[in-house]
Amino acid sequence: MKLNERGLLIVISGPSGVGKGTVRRALFEMTGHDLVYSVSMTTRAPRPGEIDGVDYYFVSKETFLERIKNNQFLEWAEFVGNYYGTPLDKVEEQLDQGKEVVLEIEVEGALQVRRQMKDAVFIFIVPPGKKALYERLRERGTDTPEMIEKRMRKAESEFLLAHKYDYIVVNDEVHNAADRIMAIIRAEHAKTERTIHNYIKMLGE
Amino acid sequence: MKLNERGLLIVISGPSGVGKGTVRRALFEMTGHDLVYSVSMTTRAPRPGEIDGVDYYFVSKETFLERIKNNQFLEWAEFVGNYYGTPLDKVEEQLDQGKEVVLEIEVEGALQVRRQMKDAVFIFIVPPGKKALYERLRERGTDTPEMIEKRMRKAESEFLLAHKYDYIVVNDEVHNAADRIMAIIRAEHAKTERTIHNYIKMLGE
Repeated sequence: MKLNERGLLIVISGPSGVGKGTVRRALFEMTGHDLVYSVSMTTRAPRPGEIDGVDYYFVSKETFLERIKNNQFLEWAEFVGNYYGTPLDKVEEQLDQGKEVVLEIEVEGALQVRRQMKDAVFIFIVPPGKKALYERLRERGTDTPEMIEKRMRKAESEFLLAHKYDYIVVNDEVHNAADRIMAIIRAEHAKTERTIHNYIKMLGE
Repeated sequence: MKLNERGLLIVISGPSGVGKGTVRRALFEMTGHDLVYSVSMTTRAPRPGEIDGVDYYFVSKETFLERIKNNQFLEWAEFVGNYYGTPLDKVEEQLDQGKEVVLEIEVEGALQVRRQMKDAVFIFIVPPGKKALYERLRERGTDTPEMIEKRMRKAESEFLLAHKYDYIVVNDEVHNAADRIMAIIRAEHAKTERTIHNYIKMLGE
């Protein structure tokens, strides 16, 4: 029996290189949940095979700018001439349907979301140490030593933003981290501030 | 990897007849946890076979009253001439050892604990409806119709104290309820306010 029927907006973020994407994928591979991705909106042209509403919502630049003006994004950014954003109305629709909407985004975007969605759940994924992060970046083998240095410096400044999040989850092992996030989702649904309204309604019946 | 090494004080409470004891037992039957009961202190004489420090801490009335004066109980009550209480120092010792200390107590006692332990986790167990509670009390077969009526009236007034708790857990099915409590314990350990101190320490290493 669910006292809170509305879905949760789960924001998964953390320093670059920490393995956010891997943790998110492990989370979605778990069973018995109602997790969905949030589909981004973009002004970039669809690539062959991309489906509107599945891969992205494809819109014109005019529409996008109009939406920015009307505060219709949870967060947005410009990247090499194209706009990308998380459409607020689409997220709200899914939350109303009882789905848990998962946003895996960079620290900067997460802080934008924080300002608009007070009742979202903010999870900061961290490595089990600075050395572990360095090793991970090195083992990935995609970056030059200079790029790794640059990423480490960026991570150093992002590390300090942990206090802006509700939870800190160590990515020591990806399934452990996913398990912890699942526990957080279950616990958040039981929180008094989310359940008391329906609880009182239930007593009246 | 545990960022919060200290145990949690978990207070399980709720209206009488809701099945707190059953839920607690189901919780302790689960594996992979570090849950312990809190042992009460009492002035009543030990019964044959009862072991000091296991069943109760047996103390004199003088000791007990002295401890009340010194604020050394999380909660206490007098019952037919004997005193019963939860000793604060013993609980703190177990928390320091990383154990999760579970207190299953009546609503009144829980509110006493709230005043002293700001960082304890307060869980309110509720029935899936008033009717369900009535049926449960009736099926138990231990109470007369008048006692059931009295219990229902007491429950009615206790129902309204839900907002003083951190979480509301519906006891629709005992294993569901225990699962939810376990998720709450895991999530609470990941809360930023409990983890940030060790997280910062870890970064410095």
